[in-house]
This record gives sequence, structure tokens and C-alpha cells, in this order.
Amino acid sequence: MKTPTMLKEIHQQPAALEKTLRLEEKNVRRIARRILDMGPRFIMLAARGTSDNAATYAKYLFEGANGIPCNLAAPSITTVYKKDIDLKGSVVIGISQSGEGTDINEVLSRARAQGAFTVGITNTAGSAITQVAEASIRLRAGAENALAATKTYTAQLLAIAMLSAALNGARNSFDRLASIPHQMQKTLETEARILEIAARYRYMQHCVIIGRGYNYCTVREAALKLMETNYVVAQPFSTADFMHGPIAMAGEGFPVFVAAAPGRMAQGVNRLIADLSARRVETVVVSSDKAALDRAAIAIPMPVTPDEPISPLFYIVPFQFLACFISQSRGIDPDNPRFLKKVTKTV
Amino acid sequence: MKTPTMLKEIHQQPAALEKTLRLEEKNVRRIARRILDMGPRFIMLAARGTSDNAATYAKYLFEGANGIPCNLAAPSITTVYKKDIDLKGSVVIGISQSGEGTDINEVLSRARAQGAFTVGITNTAGSAITQVAEASIRLRAGAENALAATKTYTAQLLAIAMLSAALNGARNSFDRLASIPHQMQKTLETEARILEIAARYRYMQHCVIIGRGYNYCTVREAALKLMETNYVVAQPFSTADFMHGPIAMAGEGFPVFVAAAPGRMAQGVNRLIADLSARRVETVVVSSDKAALDRAAIAIPMPVTPDEPISPLFYIVPFQFLACFISQSRGIDPDNPRFLKKVTKTV
Repeated sequence: MKTPTMLKEIHQQPAALEKTLRLEEKNVRRIARRILDMGPRFIMLAARGTSDNAATYAKYLFEGANGIPCNLAAPSITTVYKKDIDLKGSVVIGISQSGEGTDINEVLSRARAQGAFTVGITNTAGSAITQVAEASIRLRAGAENALAATKTYTAQLLAIAMLSAALNGARNSFDRLASIPHQMQKTLETEARILEIAARYRYMQHCVIIGRGYNYCTVREAALKLMETNYVVAQPFSTADFMHGPIAMAGEGFPVFVAAAPGRMAQGVNRLIADLSARRVETVVVSSDKAALDRAAIAIPMPVTPDEPISPLFYIVPFQFLACFISQSRGIDPDNPRFLKKVTKTV
Repeated sequence: MKTPTMLKEIHQQPAALEKTLRLEEKNVRRIARRILDMGPRFIMLAARGTSDNAATYAKYLFEGANGIPCNLAAPSITTVYKKDIDLKGSVVIGISQSGEGTDINEVLSRARAQGAFTVGITNTAGSAITQVAEASIRLRAGAENALAATKTYTAQLLAIAMLSAALNGARNSFDRLASIPHQMQKTLETEARILEIAARYRYMQHCVIIGRGYNYCTVREAALKLMETNYVVAQPFSTADFMHGPIAMAGEGFPVFVAAAPGRMAQGVNRLIADLSARRVETVVVSSDKAALDRAAIAIPMPVTPDEPISPLFYIVPFQFLACFISQSRGIDPDNPRFLKKVTKTV
């Protein structure tokens, strides 16, 4: 079987992150200074699909690390209902791999007309978003050719982590980002374990993926990868939302994937894993925490222990491999899922 | 079979709405004046489960009808990460049926300490939320005893619609709300059609529920009802998000429920129904629009044609009946789903 482009691009992540970190630091620091000078009312993020999962990360990071309130845009307010929201004094960040999402660009253009400071995050130099937004952060992931976004997603997360670090203001705030490319390289070692277990999910038709806090974006993105490449109904939940009703679905044998990064969320997540495993739910746990792994039906050990706020860059990787390898075990070409194109046009 | 409490409470919705509208107007107008006097930086909504779906409605209504930016809170930023977000000059609204959600109350209490104007929306007089928040809107739905929330959800939506109308300022802004109780009574006529079709979904294990704009809350709440009472993996999507990847799941026979309220969203939603039906997807369409119903595999005609911004109050009702009746066809007591309690405590 030929190597899928998706798999090649998963492996390009360390290089994509290294290049983005090196080449964009100065630009990101300049954008952060502008935001700090404004004393922003709030930050609004506008994105779709995978980029919207990066926007979810931005919400948690800008609020949790920087204390700046964040709002995930409902683009239809602008594009369909044609209502101008009062955005003066705010920062509006659009995220788009291609830079050609017409709905996101319309949100940015209306926001700019109202006096918001607009920023585009894109992998495509010279794309429409870089014309529409006042400032841009350019990811250096190289062209992404697989239908399922992988390296542009983690590069988006890095750009957001860089902006958060620069907003933090301390001179050494970028220091903890320096090890990211190396940690990503280590994380790719999970490939062997995923290859061992992927075939087990050959006939899985639906599943739930849970995590919380900073890794809420991880479970959303993991679910999207599985849906795109495996036609599996994969539903993401924060562990708290899962307990408010949906947990009723999780009977014996029901597959529940868990992103269990160590940190402040660990205690609650580990307790939920124990409860589910006791009920003979199929808990598939990604973690570097022995206590979490010991409670799992299927353990996926993480070879790195990043700080919780940057852990989403790494915790998505085993799920990228899972989506790719389960897809192959089903005889689906992960680069060519039915009904989909690389750039989706919506209003 | 005895009548489930859930079904009784679905039928109590016209009375719950009539009473809330009549008894809370003065209070809601007072709260709106206070908000207008502040010139709010933004509104933040904090809620869990069904109440969080009402919060989603609030985001679309306050932005789409009032132009005030809205932010759905990530409670863990406050309750787990213990980070204070800068909320001075903002309005923070907590929504909780019981008024006893400790996480939501902690968000309100921290927000109030930072100078936000805090409002609680609850069905329970004298509950903790009414002590924590500076102002409260009390729903008059009567005690809700079924595990699955129905009448408190539509009463929450009404309270939000009342607040939006009062923020609008025009003296006659409440007029279009006056017919809501009567329209709810008419909407209950969908029960007969749902009874006819419910058994068809006896063996359904997963499904997707789509809608967009104002009715994004409807599909989220519909999915939650099915998950709670039927253990079905029911995944909600805005139609735009669905097209950005998950649509790959929808092959021949795959069940896709659609909330297709007439209005600005109708054209795009109807085109998607046509595309899916052409692919022999099982499209189950709730609408008053003949064009949408004609394209459906299974049509659920709506007997009312409300304005789009208030349509979510009515479009959830057929899904409440569906959740209740499919559950009965499976031999599940919808008032007693496994693993769940009425009040879920999370941090």
C-alpha cells in the first residue's frame, strides 16, 4: 500500500513547527504589542472545521493564560443575517489554512470596517485573508495536500501559543515554546502503538471522545479526523458536558477515547476513566500518567510530558495516526474520503 | 403503559410560557434598562447541559437581534484553572434550572467580584443562584420532575427572547412574543405525526441532527434529548460545520434529522436536504415549508410559522416527542434513563 499523504504530513509536523516558531516570532511579538496597546475589549475568533478547533484552543489559552475574554464567532450572524455586531475596540482573529474561506473573510472585513483590529492566521502566503486582515501570521507548514488537515492544525496551535506568550509580556515567555519541535518529534513515537491497535476499531461505527479544559480542542479535532476519514459518528465532549446527559450512552463495550493530559484537569478525568472502566466501557486512554493508563481498557502511552497549556499540540497526534490507520484497515484511502474536497465553501 | 412525566411536562409548555411572559415582563424590562445604561462591553453566558443550549440561543439572539457581542463561558477557566478573566463592564448571565449548579454559581460569584453585572435565570425561587447573582429572572414553569428537561428549556428560551425584546427598546417590542403560548399549543399537534413514525427508529444507534443560525440551539438540544433518553449517539451540527468534513459519514440510509425553520437560513438548508435525499440519506425534516418537506424521506410538518428568531421555541417540540416515543418503543422509561440524576454536579 502506498504511504498516504496524510501520514507523510503527520511526520512533517516537527519541521513545520520549528520553521513557524523561528520565522514568525518577530511578527507575532509586533502584533501582540499592538493588542496590548489597545487594551482590547475582547478577542473574537472566526474559523471553520479544523481551524475552528484551533480557535477553541485560542479561547482557553487567551482566557486561561492571559485573562482576556474570548468569543467564538457565529459567522452566520454576519454572512446570513447581515447584522453588524458592535466590535469597536476588539481584536478579531480569522483562522484559515487556505486563507480563502469567504465566510471568514467576510467576518474579518465587516469587523475591520467597524474598527476592530483584525488578524489572519493562514498557511498560504498572499491568500485573500492576508489582504482582508490588517495583520497576518503566516504558518510555515509547507503546502498541505492531504484532505485531512494535520500539520496546519498543530502549526495553528503553535501560532496561538506564540501570540499568548507574547501577550504575557515577560521577556522569557517564549522559552517554554522552544522545546516544542523536539517534543513533537518524540510524540511521533506513538505511531508504533497505534499501528498495533488500529485494526481493533475496523468495525467501530460510533464512539465518543472526551477531554477537558485546554484539551477540549483536542477531542473536537480528534472527532473531526475520524469523521472525515472513517465515516464514524465520533462525538466530542468535555468531560463535564458528557456527565450532563450523554454519559447514558456509555454501556458495556461502548468505545470512549480519552485525552488525559496531566495537569489541573487530571484528577476529574482520571476519576471518570475509573468509573467508565468499572462499567466495562472500552476506555482508550492517551496519557503520560501511569494512574490514567492503568485504569484504561486500551492504553496509549505518551512519550512526552508537556505543560498542560501546550499539551494540545501533542495530544492530537495519536488521534491523527488513529484516523489514518483505522481508515486503512477499512480499505478507505484517507486522502480521498467520499463527498469531501480540500476547500469547503460555505456562507 | 403509564404516561411518562416527560410527556406530561411537554404538554405543560403553553401554560409555563404564558405564566413566565405575564409575570416576568416588568422584571425583565428593569434588568434590560440596567444593561442599556451600562453600555455593556459584552455579554457572557454560563450554563451546562440543556441550559447551555439555551445559552447558545442567547448568543445568536443577542448578537443577531441586538448586535451585542456574546461569549459562551468555559466554566473550567474559573473553576479548575482559577484564572480571573477581565470582566469589568460586562454582563454575565448564568442559566440553571435548579439554580444549584456549583460551577455556574462560582463563575457568577467571581464575575460579580470583578465588577460584572450578574443575572441568574432559574426555575427555582430562592435557589443559590438567586443569592449569588445581582438580579434574577424566575421562570414560571412549575416544578420539573422528569429527568429530561423540556418545559424549563422553552421557558429559558422565552426569558432570553423577552430580555432581547426589552434590550431592543421599542415600546412594542414585546408584541410579537404575545402569541407564543398559543403557537406552542398549536405546535403540540405534532404529537400525532411523531407517534406514527417513532417506531421506525427503534433500532437506530446513531444519527446526526442539523440546522443553522437561530436553530443551532435546537439541534444541540434535540441531540441531548436523544442521548439522555435513548442512548443513541446523536450528533448535532450547524449545516456549515457538517459540510466541513462530517458529511462524509452520510451515506445511503444514514439518518439525518433536520430542523428547517423558514427564514434566512432556509435556502441553504433546503439545498442540503435535496443533496442528501438524492444520495438516499434518510432525511427526517421538521418544517412548515412545503419545499423542504417535499424533499424529505420522512416529513414532519410544523403547524406554526413563527418569525425565525423565535422559531427555536417551537422547533424543539417534535424532537421532545421523538425522544420520548422512541425511548418507549425501546422499552426504556424516559423518566429513568440509566446512569443519570436530575441534578448533575460538576466542577
